[in-house]
Amino acid sequence: MTGPRITLKRRITWGDLDPLGIVFYPRYYEWIDQAAHVFFDDIGLNLGRLLQERHIIFALVETECRYFRPASYHDEIEIHTNLTEIQDKTLTLKHEIRLSGGDLLVQGREKRICIRKKDPAGFEAIQIPEDILTLLKDHL
Amino acid sequence: MTGPRITLKRRITWGDLDPLGIVFYPRYYEWIDQAAHVFFDDIGLNLGRLLQERHIIFALVETECRYFRPASYHDEIEIHTNLTEIQDKTLTLKHEIRLSGGDLLVQGREKRICIRKKDPAGFEAIQIPEDILTLLKDHL
Amino acid sequence: MTGPRITLKRRITWGDLDPLGIVFYPRYYEWIDQAAHVFFDDIGLNLGRLLQERHIIFALVETECRYFRPASYHDEIEIHTNLTEIQDKTLTLKHEIRLSGGDLLVQGREKRICIRKKDPAGFEAIQIPEDILTLLKDHL
Amino acid sequence: MTGPRITLKRRITWGDLDPLGIVFYPRYYEWIDQAAHVFFDDIGLNLGRLLQERHIIFALVETECRYFRPASYHDEIEIHTNLTEIQDKTLTLKHEIRLSGGDLLVQGREKRICIRKKDPAGFEAIQIPEDILTLLKDHL
Repeated sequence: MTGPRITLKRRITWGDLDPLGIVFYPRYYEWIDQAAHVFFDDIGLNLGRLLQERHIIFALVETECRYFRPASYHDEIEIHTNLTEIQDKTLTLKHEIRLSGGDLLVQGREKRICIRKKDPAGFEAIQIPEDILTLLKDHL
Repeated sequence: MTGPRITLKRRITWGDLDPLGIVFYPRYYEWIDQAAHVFFDDIGLNLGRLLQERHIIFALVETECRYFRPASYHDEIEIHTNLTEIQDKTLTLKHEIRLSGGDLLVQGREKRICIRKKDPAGFEAIQIPEDILTLLKDHL
Repeated sequence: MTGPRITLKRRITWGDLDPLGIVFYPRYYEWIDQAAHVFFDDIGLNLGRLLQERHIIFALVETECRYFRPASYHDEIEIHTNLTEIQDKTLTLKHEIRLSGGDLLVQGREKRICIRKKDPAGFEAIQIPEDILTLLKDHL
Repeated sequence: MTGPRITLKRRITWGDLDPLGIVFYPRYYEWIDQAAHVFFDDIGLNLGRLLQERHIIFALVETECRYFRPASYHDEIEIHTNLTEIQDKTLTLKHEIRLSGGDLLVQGREKRICIRKKDPAGFEAIQIPEDILTLLKDHL
């Protein structure tokens, strides 16, 4: 059993902000997606190589965020990511976006499904392969 | 009681796509936010003017999406938006993203809270003003 | 010889804006790229099919924009696109972004090079194939 | 006289990529804009405070990029930023985007103009104030 790990640190920048001077919410999803990729890479499962070598990727089934506090210009934030559930074909990641060392801004959740790319186009949901399942369970 | 209205039509473009050739999911949230602004404008509540004239805006409390089918290059999509719930300070919008005249791609939900901008900075949650409440209820 | 054609109409939305309430400039490049894809599709050269069937795409060598006037919330804009130069391997598109039927906001330019995708990875610049060259010259 | 400074380090992520698996070019402009804000902050001129306290900002007049090599999934990149020209009302920043410690990917240029925000809306170009000019000249 492992706890959450810090997957991203970022300084809020001008282009992240809306006319109120606070982060435009789809940006949080961009960062959460990035955090997921870092999480997988950190535990030894680089999604780029997984796609290239085995034509497998973890696609999205559901995503959600709850917003507690806005972030503003040049705030330093960090994302804490945790693998919280594994099923036959799916897994769930939870992300907390916090001011660096401080307040909770956003709670996010991604449910991802294991898919194999088919030729010439299209995807099919598959069971998470045994070796990947073993690796994931070490980080639940 | 009114049903959902079409708030956005869009042709999927190159820059919306990820390396699998399907829409990168935070883009759906950008379009859902855009659809919400169109919805409010359509019912006579332009959020730009509301902010400028009364310092009021509907900020996000929660958002979520479920993904049923991917969209690809030059697909034509449309968003159907529905106001489904109103409370003292909050409201909920549901969005369906469909291939034009066809399959459901994404179901989205936004819960928004009425806030007033304070000087020199910051926001406070407020009750939805009576005139706005009346207008909204006509479109529930 | 054909003049510019309207390749995109868009209503500026909340998520396009920066804290000054005007469009954040990288958005203009997203729209210009989108306009280029529409331009090619309009003249009978769908870039999605070109990539899928012939492994050819027009990648970017240079891009630039000049900004004359800002755009604001719910402005209606349109892009006028023109093919202005063709060389052995490259072509140049000029884009004017205007308020609908009105003032010039942005002048943009994209220089694109014809590339072929190589397996397993990588790209090589190639001469524009004869049939595509003929098609393009009809729209210079 | 000071040379370029490193203003941004970033790992290319899934959401930065297009269907070819290389960076979608408007992302480079997002990073260059971010690099400009970091540059100004680094030399003691935080643009957020400048806007809040003196209603002054450096808006864009022209931007351009030349693309030499594409970047791919999980490449580490860095931006080197240089102030290369100052005039009465404008300044020019040059940005080099490189693989970390390696090849040049993109050369970018931003020409920015000093503007003052007017009430209730609008902007006017102004001469760069004397104290800011002095500061900038130290970093030319």
